[in-house]
Amino acid sequence: MISVGVIGATGYAGAELVRILAGHPEVELSILTSRNYAGEHFATVYPAMSGIVNLKCEAYDVERVCERADVIFTALPHKLPMSLVPELLKRHKKIIDLSADFRFQDAAAYEAAYQPHTAKSLLSQTVYGLCEIYFDKIKATHLIGNPGCYPTSSLLPLVPLLKEGIVDQNFIIIDSKSGVSGAGRSPSLTTAFCEANESLKAYQIATHRHVPEMEAVLSQVTGRSQRVSFTPHLVPMSRGMFTTIYLSVRQTLKGDNISHIFKSFYQNAPFIRILPEGTSPDTRHVRGTNFCDIGFKLDERNKRLILLSAIDNLVKGAAGQAVQNMNIMLGLDERAGLARIPYPV
Amino acid sequence: MISVGVIGATGYAGAELVRILAGHPEVELSILTSRNYAGEHFATVYPAMSGIVNLKCEAYDVERVCERADVIFTALPHKLPMSLVPELLKRHKKIIDLSADFRFQDAAAYEAAYQPHTAKSLLSQTVYGLCEIYFDKIKATHLIGNPGCYPTSSLLPLVPLLKEGIVDQNFIIIDSKSGVSGAGRSPSLTTAFCEANESLKAYQIATHRHVPEMEAVLSQVTGRSQRVSFTPHLVPMSRGMFTTIYLSVRQTLKGDNISHIFKSFYQNAPFIRILPEGTSPDTRHVRGTNFCDIGFKLDERNKRLILLSAIDNLVKGAAGQAVQNMNIMLGLDERAGLARIPYPV
Amino acid sequence: MISVGVIGATGYAGAELVRILAGHPEVELSILTSRNYAGEHFATVYPAMSGIVNLKCEAYDVERVCERADVIFTALPHKLPMSLVPELLKRHKKIIDLSADFRFQDAAAYEAAYQPHTAKSLLSQTVYGLCEIYFDKIKATHLIGNPGCYPTSSLLPLVPLLKEGIVDQNFIIIDSKSGVSGAGRSPSLTTAFCEANESLKAYQIATHRHVPEMEAVLSQVTGRSQRVSFTPHLVPMSRGMFTTIYLSVRQTLKGDNISHIFKSFYQNAPFIRILPEGTSPDTRHVRGTNFCDIGFKLDERNKRLILLSAIDNLVKGAAGQAVQNMNIMLGLDERAGLARIPYPV
Amino acid sequence: MISVGVIGATGYAGAELVRILAGHPEVELSILTSRNYAGEHFATVYPAMSGIVNLKCEAYDVERVCERADVIFTALPHKLPMSLVPELLKRHKKIIDLSADFRFQDAAAYEAAYQPHTAKSLLSQTVYGLCEIYFDKIKATHLIGNPGCYPTSSLLPLVPLLKEGIVDQNFIIIDSKSGVSGAGRSPSLTTAFCEANESLKAYQIATHRHVPEMEAVLSQVTGRSQRVSFTPHLVPMSRGMFTTIYLSVRQTLKGDNISHIFKSFYQNAPFIRILPEGTSPDTRHVRGTNFCDIGFKLDERNKRLILLSAIDNLVKGAAGQAVQNMNIMLGLDERAGLARIPYPV
Repeated sequence: MISVGVIGATGYAGAELVRILAGHPEVELSILTSRNYAGEHFATVYPAMSGIVNLKCEAYDVERVCERADVIFTALPHKLPMSLVPELLKRHKKIIDLSADFRFQDAAAYEAAYQPHTAKSLLSQTVYGLCEIYFDKIKATHLIGNPGCYPTSSLLPLVPLLKEGIVDQNFIIIDSKSGVSGAGRSPSLTTAFCEANESLKAYQIATHRHVPEMEAVLSQVTGRSQRVSFTPHLVPMSRGMFTTIYLSVRQTLKGDNISHIFKSFYQNAPFIRILPEGTSPDTRHVRGTNFCDIGFKLDERNKRLILLSAIDNLVKGAAGQAVQNMNIMLGLDERAGLARIPYPV
Repeated sequence: MISVGVIGATGYAGAELVRILAGHPEVELSILTSRNYAGEHFATVYPAMSGIVNLKCEAYDVERVCERADVIFTALPHKLPMSLVPELLKRHKKIIDLSADFRFQDAAAYEAAYQPHTAKSLLSQTVYGLCEIYFDKIKATHLIGNPGCYPTSSLLPLVPLLKEGIVDQNFIIIDSKSGVSGAGRSPSLTTAFCEANESLKAYQIATHRHVPEMEAVLSQVTGRSQRVSFTPHLVPMSRGMFTTIYLSVRQTLKGDNISHIFKSFYQNAPFIRILPEGTSPDTRHVRGTNFCDIGFKLDERNKRLILLSAIDNLVKGAAGQAVQNMNIMLGLDERAGLARIPYPV
Repeated sequence: MISVGVIGATGYAGAELVRILAGHPEVELSILTSRNYAGEHFATVYPAMSGIVNLKCEAYDVERVCERADVIFTALPHKLPMSLVPELLKRHKKIIDLSADFRFQDAAAYEAAYQPHTAKSLLSQTVYGLCEIYFDKIKATHLIGNPGCYPTSSLLPLVPLLKEGIVDQNFIIIDSKSGVSGAGRSPSLTTAFCEANESLKAYQIATHRHVPEMEAVLSQVTGRSQRVSFTPHLVPMSRGMFTTIYLSVRQTLKGDNISHIFKSFYQNAPFIRILPEGTSPDTRHVRGTNFCDIGFKLDERNKRLILLSAIDNLVKGAAGQAVQNMNIMLGLDERAGLARIPYPV
Repeated sequence: MISVGVIGATGYAGAELVRILAGHPEVELSILTSRNYAGEHFATVYPAMSGIVNLKCEAYDVERVCERADVIFTALPHKLPMSLVPELLKRHKKIIDLSADFRFQDAAAYEAAYQPHTAKSLLSQTVYGLCEIYFDKIKATHLIGNPGCYPTSSLLPLVPLLKEGIVDQNFIIIDSKSGVSGAGRSPSLTTAFCEANESLKAYQIATHRHVPEMEAVLSQVTGRSQRVSFTPHLVPMSRGMFTTIYLSVRQTLKGDNISHIFKSFYQNAPFIRILPEGTSPDTRHVRGTNFCDIGFKLDERNKRLILLSAIDNLVKGAAGQAVQNMNIMLGLDERAGLARIPYPV
């Protein structure tokens, strides 16, 4: 059994990590830390886990963490992980960081969107953990920057087509819709029930910090500087992220071509499901799972291609992909601990 | 008092008409018809209205309708109104039809999207009831085709900018999100609580019948054949429609220019609220009202302009706009019966 | 026009007062105060009100408040009103307090449930503002303690039957279910979307502070010390309160007797709707209105009587009843400003 | 591997059976039948299951079912199973029926609540599958009547206390709140999103058919004829059932006594979690799991005891308990296939 720790176990992404890791056949959850709930049983904070997770939350202590865990997930707000990770790496731990701190290899890009980076020297080692795209690099690293939820839902449908070179690179419009859990567990007016219920709104229009993250990957994949237009929306549901992408197709394409590109690109990807042309994915169908369902529709009249994706923002968009990254790093079956069967409703 | 009838009073749009008209200071509701509930009290079908609306639903009978009502709202599935309206017009009634049957002046456009039109001779008289755009024509007609909800939410932000000629006419991407009531009251699997809850999906991707409706208006407004890309989505809320529009701006524009265009175009429009640049509208803020809130954001980096609108699909997207049309036709204050103050939550 | 002020205008009950008063035909909203938003436009805090309410929120200042308003609603957490009200009464203002501070005439009962009372001398003047029960007293006072939402939903069905003496006074079980807005606007984990959605739980089981409030009224009504068992529950909806009451009936009764008692007791009460036996009220049918819908079912097999009530917790359970109280105090039509027609959906 | 069939696989309970059985380590799903979807892939009806369940739905055919399955779950509306089960039993199949048809040993009780029973001779063999109460009988039978959701949520907290004889048997008030999936998958107005959202109502007040089911068990357990008062409510959530029970306690009890009774009664029950006194269970904490969480509060002031339970109506209230019954019948670990770890949110 591999001993695993979760730093920041009581936020939604942290707790989802605990949920998944508690059922992982090759793993033992050995330490959970929490700033707000140190000293309390995890199952007091999340009563759903009563009788299932028997650990107490602890304050973060590097010695204790390193003594007890070989793989460490950091599920903290950005800026915190970059102060902890150097020490953990020195002690030869494997790290999967769910914040933005290790998603960029270019410090300047990070700093433009976030703040000064205090562990720049590590950025050459970090791998962007978009599993289906960077599988081989993930296999070979000790430090993963786990992708953001919006980039995951956008890049998985985009990358195969951009690699294929069949879409106009100057025309990528991404319209995303997220459930409320994406905003985290700290109480705020925006995420209060009465404010979010029966409400739909956009936010950070064209200025969201996930834009440079997407653009860095797309630029790397296509070999030229790539831009996207991106607008996120908040939707009254707990979990789920739906992304609609509008592309301009350069040449005469048929739906079958698109289908073929997707299916061959993702033929070995157990968590990608390609739907028939014209069928929409549905967040409900991936709820609680690590699937990314991808649909598409060729609008021949307008020479446009519409891509659609659905993920669970806390699973494939956060904790599930983080565990998938761990599995790949450790040479385990990619699906270990992630074979959760979705609910019918 | 003007005597008013609602044909098809027990669907959601019909019942919303009853709700609004029951509080209209210049109107008396004199007849309600319903295919499914003929003979029953309206308040038995909608117990919320108990003690407020005391009419019984009746089977449709042209004599009785014409005897009792001078203004008639038809809130029926398309195809039915075109069989009833000719007779009503002959008897000099004023008609506001909420279906698609009288939204097109070009029969071919209607027939391509719907079915053969059986009252073509009336199409030259019909006016598309998008109040803020066709005010003067509405004032002068007896027959209104009340706009669809998606076209209303898309055209109100689009028309001023297209008229101004500052956006690339080949690049109009419309991504709409609708609450479930837009699908009507007939029980179906799609609109069942357990199927729609915690679900987000697209439907009729690039093929929705509201596309030709939008294109007809935009072509008429710009004087050239105009196309749009449109994808509707279903969102787990009862009421509300949010539309995000992506445009390419041709020249060097500033947010202030956009703001100025909107504010001067809509200076006399009591139901249009223009938000400051970068502020998103929210369906919750227009719930139950006839407002269309419009926001925008200029993405200078990508030379794109993002427009955002929020309406209540049953009010400005259906029954409220229908009553606004009636007010304009009759020379009443446009706001009569529509000054409902929104809920804080 | 009567000039009216709302102290604490930006909480949910305060904002609902603003919503109702802004549409009241005899009233001018002249001052709004808010601790958190002093200096901001009310419509910035509640964008739904943009173009409707044009006041700024101010810090509380007794001089300014008294200069501008003749009737004052205090929508503050308990403990605050009792420090403000004495000064306001001295200046001959009419006060409707939405907190618990003036609901009890017996200071000891208040103090057992809340904290020391610092304005005890006023308690002999205060009237419990349950409009349908204390109409005449309300008419004659200057100081109203506006009832809690749970007591309103419980007492309105209970009082007529207890007055009639046909139920066992030792057996009153009250099971209430409340929407989330009842917990107020301050962000908290309990009221966060992801915590309340798909969740149902009880809280303050048998210990809620509304119990002594209910018992005080029932004891006063029946002339003997009266006790109730009460359990509140939190339900995933924004507005609405549903109360189910289990009683033991002493003698041989028929449904018709119950119906008759209710209808004659409430014959002049415009906001009480009595449903046929066996028909349940529904919170959706009273949403946004000042109605209390009452249903009942006689379980002859068990000699029990089940009462059911539905109110909107923010309207009849708070702001609506407060305005109804103002109307009665001022000799206006009880319904003024409260004739809102409910939504069909 | 045990080969298992689900008759009626496309209703919500049937699909939940498929979900659970697809992940059961000792079982192979070998046949699914459906009246409405015969010939279609199960994953077409439930796209969430795409790539997980690869069976087609078939029309029911007794030969094919018996050839392929040794254990058969019938998830059909009552009245249908009693026509199928005799034939299946003749062929030595083990049957778990999720309808009411085999819940009663007394045909008269069944017939009073439902309709004439056409397989009366089997009623002496059937066992009521409330696992924690009838474990030994379940072990020894071939035919299980799987309990209703309301009885499960009511009986699990009630039975230990009634057995102990510490509560007044004439005073059992049960107030239950159910999510919408309990009403099944067939589209209806009641379960439509816009009708159920923001709605709370009671139904079948004091007349629900689960009452005789509860009373039969309680009478059997206590050895005397037992009655309950029961009111079910519909709540806007997909899954989850919460039951609040009001009891009168005869003697001087302390919370510790109650806690002790529950814990010793359920000491070997892996799916029962007893909460500390005064802590409410929450449907969200059992969502998707087979747990029944039980809470309680002694109201010493009124000599009453309040019991609270939360289950997932589709799992412990239907398909989960059915699988638990299968496990017990077959001598497997009771928890096999049911160790699903709940979501944090």
